[in-house]
Order: sequence, then structure tokens, then C-alpha cells
Amino acid sequence: MSDNRSVGLVKPQILTFAEDEPMQLESGATLGPVTIAYETYGRLNAARSNAILIVHALSGSAHAAGYHSPEDRKPGWWDECIGPGKAFDTNRYYVICSNVLGSCYGSTGPSSINPATGKPYGLGFPVVTISDMVHAQLKLIDHLGIDQLLCVAGGSMGGMQALEWAARHPQRVKAAIPLATTAQHSPMLIAFSEVGRQAIYADPNWNKGDYYGLGVKPDAGLAVARMVGHITYLSEESMQQKFGRKLRNLEQYGYEFETEFEVESYLKYNGNSFTRRFDANSYLFITKAMDYFDLTQPTGSLAAALANSTAVKFLVVSFTSDWLYPSYHSKRLVSALTAVGADVTYLDIKSSWGHDAFLLEVDTMTNLIDSFLSRLAREENIAVPSPEEADVAGGAENVEATPLAVQAGAAM
Amino acid sequence: MSDNRSVGLVKPQILTFAEDEPMQLESGATLGPVTIAYETYGRLNAARSNAILIVHALSGSAHAAGYHSPEDRKPGWWDECIGPGKAFDTNRYYVICSNVLGSCYGSTGPSSINPATGKPYGLGFPVVTISDMVHAQLKLIDHLGIDQLLCVAGGSMGGMQALEWAARHPQRVKAAIPLATTAQHSPMLIAFSEVGRQAIYADPNWNKGDYYGLGVKPDAGLAVARMVGHITYLSEESMQQKFGRKLRNLEQYGYEFETEFEVESYLKYNGNSFTRRFDANSYLFITKAMDYFDLTQPTGSLAAALANSTAVKFLVVSFTSDWLYPSYHSKRLVSALTAVGADVTYLDIKSSWGHDAFLLEVDTMTNLIDSFLSRLAREENIAVPSPEEADVAGGAENVEATPLAVQAGAAM
Repeated sequence: MSDNRSVGLVKPQILTFAEDEPMQLESGATLGPVTIAYETYGRLNAARSNAILIVHALSGSAHAAGYHSPEDRKPGWWDECIGPGKAFDTNRYYVICSNVLGSCYGSTGPSSINPATGKPYGLGFPVVTISDMVHAQLKLIDHLGIDQLLCVAGGSMGGMQALEWAARHPQRVKAAIPLATTAQHSPMLIAFSEVGRQAIYADPNWNKGDYYGLGVKPDAGLAVARMVGHITYLSEESMQQKFGRKLRNLEQYGYEFETEFEVESYLKYNGNSFTRRFDANSYLFITKAMDYFDLTQPTGSLAAALANSTAVKFLVVSFTSDWLYPSYHSKRLVSALTAVGADVTYLDIKSSWGHDAFLLEVDTMTNLIDSFLSRLAREENIAVPSPEEADVAGGAENVEATPLAVQAGAAM
Repeated sequence: MSDNRSVGLVKPQILTFAEDEPMQLESGATLGPVTIAYETYGRLNAARSNAILIVHALSGSAHAAGYHSPEDRKPGWWDECIGPGKAFDTNRYYVICSNVLGSCYGSTGPSSINPATGKPYGLGFPVVTISDMVHAQLKLIDHLGIDQLLCVAGGSMGGMQALEWAARHPQRVKAAIPLATTAQHSPMLIAFSEVGRQAIYADPNWNKGDYYGLGVKPDAGLAVARMVGHITYLSEESMQQKFGRKLRNLEQYGYEFETEFEVESYLKYNGNSFTRRFDANSYLFITKAMDYFDLTQPTGSLAAALANSTAVKFLVVSFTSDWLYPSYHSKRLVSALTAVGADVTYLDIKSSWGHDAFLLEVDTMTNLIDSFLSRLAREENIAVPSPEEADVAGGAENVEATPLAVQAGAAM
């Protein structure tokens, strides 16, 4: 980690709220207290106007950049885009990333202790939505003393959160960068979510969500769910390039069912390693939140949903080989934004990497995001923080370090 | 079934061979005796030159057309294309369909009794390949006294068998109709196969394939495998058209994990009903056979593989929204066929139905197949069977009826 473009060592942080008054959820249920894990990189300027919120995908965490310890083999999940001189330039912007509600990386989720029972929530955790995740992020922004974010940026489910911010809280954000995403989760996405959930339900160790502390977890089911997911993040073309029909450690077919093709080995490795870092119940809750995401509701009109977002500036990006979130979803979004007169920049990036492209097309993304943010900073007169300005969060008193599992680097 | 374009009542038939000398498999293993379930529709002409072999996909059976009993609610899986006046016109052609080796619909497979142990083979069944399936079909054709088929036709895995016939047994077939298929199973297809297998392995009732007669089967795992498969047979567009985000029996979100979206209900229904009609071990063996399919081997050249097929006439069909077997696979095949000077007709049919299109685009397929077969029959001087000519197979002595489960109509 001797990289002068790295944010270096970073400290996981925790905000707890809704201790007295529980948080109202979209479903009508309540939740409290609520803990949100987050990290910050760079410094807030005097006007508190240079803050960018990074929002993560299904299995991401608050650890978006840098290292938790000098021994870490891998940095945060979007380290290639967050740091000094990178797309989200920490010399200029104060970058915040928080773990979503329902996850298992420090924020309150089904593996958290339910204060009413003294045991983990399990399926007793209330179903949360993208809107609820964003409400928790608003609490964090309030806590950090930020009236208005310069930008909210993220891909996949992160893009849904960015859109939710822009549509429902336009007064709290100047710009949004939704990447490889949709304003309305499609039936195909719901179908893949449901298959993953069914794989978890089918694992007898799932035990209706009540498996914490029993010594066995629904690893087999979660691994299958993850394997399905992994296929959908790639493309037919990228799989041809990456694996082809190559055999692993074999010259010819073995005529048995052991792993033989490299692509099988890759999937099994990723499925199994996922079970060491992610909670099966969180997988259920977060996929459900994605399935529920439909910005067109309740009117049925995307333009109506975005009618109050005309002051927000948008950078919308899709990728030509992303068959999970096909470009036409982004194009439909851009049409609606154009219809309401919003300031929108759109690029359909030619890439063979499928949905993963938003994490892999680093050079293209860096150029695009840097130029969008530079224009934004110029138009909004955003000052670069002076070296004296403290890292607000890093210096805040109510910060406590919390141990987080080392990430595998996968962000979806 | 009072349809005068139906083949009417049909009788499942059985051929048993390799009773004395076991069948040599591609792996080097042997298998015997071997039973092949088949059905025939229409009549063989005097020259025995009007026979068409229909080859099925992953979960298909020999029951391609007609009804086993007047009470059957559904006809055979390709009934829309097989019958008097249909694409495969039983007034003109003698249509044969046999169940593949490794399946569970009457042909020898992992659920058959291993004569060496007196128990079902389970995982002791040898891994079979597309080539082995075709060798068993050759035995059937020999048995029916047919030197050369007029045509072999099928989609998906059926298309692989059609290509295997044309490439490796060109003297036994005048024409091939590979639909929605590939000459080389892609890494993405292998990946989806492997996920399905992993879902089965993960089910404790699978018991390493030894579950016959125990009262429990790996239904949960097989259902997940089938659900994954079902998504891949559709397209993003057809799922939008068919399901959208419609809720089932609900006005608004329930904020729980029960089935809510119509697409979830559809998948679960299909996954569960599949477990009542298909054997999990057969799913393992047949997906493995598909994964191994690579016509380019051993030379690495598709043109070399097809060098002896110049006398075979091809009708190659792909579908624009089939992302499982994308059109470029068919185009590559057509290029290789053109390079060796074969007679090839190719159409990339514009359809929104994804891989399923080969079963759903009935009108287009009927026009296309009828015109291809009519030209073939004309060029090859194929006589229409006279009414006096007997149905060879139906009248053969060594036929025995075998009870087959009623099909759900799904052919893949």
C-alpha cells in the first residue's frame, strides 16, 4: 500500500441514531436503535460544500477506499476511483461511504441484535427499502453537518440510491451519478433475485433465518445464490475472453462431476468465498429492497417522479454489454430527465465487461467522472479544502472503531 | 384432442440393444443393456427415404406429438410443429423422436437399474456425451431399417445432436435443422449448467445421487436449477411483456418474503412442477453432456469438423433475443459451412421470446421448415407414403408399451 494515490489507512466509523425515537420505515414498521457504518476520505471544506456520498451495490460495504491495516492485501472496493488524483479526487472532495441498512458490515441488519429479544433479528428484521437506506444516509449527512451533498454516486443498487436521493431529496444534493442501473427493477432482475433467495431457503441450515450462533450457516445456498449473481455480472463475451472452454489442471475431459472447466472453478471459488464474508439473511433483505425499487411509483410516471429534480445535475452511464441493466433503462431515465428539463449528461460506454464494467472501465470512468465533477465544482464555486481544514469525521468525538471483515474486493 | 391436424393417439415404444455386447461410450466406459424410448408419427414410404428424426432438448422426451390417452390435457412437446399439414408434415414424412441416453423418460439413465448391482445407477451411471446420444439414435434408425434419414431437426441441445449427426455421420443423413444452438457450448452456458448442478449437490436429499427409493428426493435443489434455467430461456423483453412488475393477488407490497411478483410465482411454479416430472441425476448427466459438446475438437477448427458434411443440406436458425445461444454462434457455424461449400440456408429470426422462440415462433418456423423440407423432398425425389404403407414401427413386433409420465409441455 505504498501508493501515493491511495487514501492510505482509514478507520471504520459508526453512527448510532433512533435510540429514543425509532426510525419509521417505508413499510410502516419501525426500527431502533439504528447503527450505520461509514468511512470518509479527504477533507470537508469550510463551506461544507465538497462532500460526495458513494453508495454501494448489493454486497458492498462502507470500506470503499484505502486500507484498514498495513497488512491488508486488498484496498476498499472502489479504491481505483477514490483517492488523490483519482475520479473522486480526495484532494478536492470529501468522500463519504456508508454501509446500507440491512447489510452485515456494521450497519443494522438481520444479523444485528434485536434489543427486544437480546438475540439477532433474523427474519424478524423489518423489510427495508432503498428509500429507508437513503433515510439512514440522510441521518449520517445531518450528523456530519452537511446541508447539501455535492454529489451522490454509485453503480447497480448504488445507482438506485443515487436516483432516490435526486428524486426524493433534491434539496439535499446538487448532482447524481447513477451508473449501470435502472429507475425500475425489471422482472428479470426480480427473477434472478428470487432464484438466489430460493437457493438460500432450500438450504436446511438456513432454518428460517434463525441460524446465528448454531455453528452452521446456509453456506451452500448462499454460494449458489452468489454463483448465479456472478454470471449476471459478466457478459457472454467477457466469459469467452476470460475463460473460454479452458480446462483446469486437465488435458482432457475427466468424464466426472468434479470441477473441470475454469469457469466452474471461478464460480465455485467466488461462491464459497462469499459465504465467508456475507450474511445469507442480509442477501435476502437487500435483494428484496432492490426488487421493490420503482421510482415511477405511485404515479406510474418517471417524469413525474423526477419533476422536482430539475436543479440536480445528472451523469448517467450505461454499458453496452450490461444485459442485467440494459442500456435502454438508462436511456428511458435520460428521456424522463430531459422531459422535465434537468441537466443531464449520458454516455452508453462500449464495453465487453457486462455489468461489472462500472468497476472495471476505470480509465473511461475516471475521465468521465472527473470532467463532470470539475464542471460541477466550477459552476457551484466549490472550494478545494485548505490543508488546515480538519477531517470532520476523522476528528469527530463520537467515532468508535469497529472491526470489519476484510473485503474480497467484490463490490456487488 | 379432436384436432384433425393432430397425430392423435400415439404409443410410447422401446428399443433395447447392447444386451450381449455393451455399448462403447466416448469416455471409454461401456454401458449395457441400453434401452431407448421412442415414438413415431406418420408412415415410412416404400423407399424408406422419408424419415425425419426429431431430437429434443435438456428435459424433453420422446413424446413430441399427439396424446398418450384421450384424457391427456397436453399433447407432446412439439405438437404445434408435428402433424398433418404442420411444419413436419406427417402426411409426407415419417417422424421419429427418441428420448436421449441419460434421461429419465424411458431411455437408460441414472435412474435405471444397473444390472451389476440390481439398484439404480445413480452416480454410477457413466458420463454420456452428445456423441453417445447420437450413437444410440443410430441403433434405433438401424432397427427401423432406415439407411439414411431425410433430416435431423432440433433446437438447443437438439440442435447439438443435429450437428453431431451432420458432422460425424454425414452418410446417414441428407439434411440437418439445428435451431437456437451452438457448435461449441460456451463458458456462459457451462456456468449456468454448473450453478444448476451446484444447487442439486447442495440439497442434502441428493445424497451423492443415491436417493432412489428413500422417499425423499433433492426437489428443492432441482427446483432452483430449473428456475435458473427458466430465466435463461426467456428474454428481458419477453419478461417485461409477460410479467412486468405485476403483483400476484396483491394491491401493494407485502413487505415480506412470500411470493409477491408474478414472475416469482411463475418461476416457483415451474421449478416445483419440474421436480414432479424430472430426475435430478438426469439433470446432472444431461447438462454435463451439453457442456462437453464442442464440435471443433480435436482439431480446433469448425470447418475441419464439417469437411465431410458437404453433401448435407442445412437450415440454420437463430433468434435475435436468444442471449443463451446468441446469433453469432449460428453465424459462425454458417461461415464454416459456407467455407466447406455446404448447402446452407440461414435465418436470424427477429423475435422477442429469447431462447424459447424456437418453440413459440410457430408460424415463422412452419413456413421456414416446410419450404426447406419441400425443396429437399423435391430435389431428393422423396415419395409421399401411400395410404397402404404400414407404420413400420407401430407394426413392428418387438414393440412394448411403457408408461411414461405426462409431460408438462416444456421441452427444454
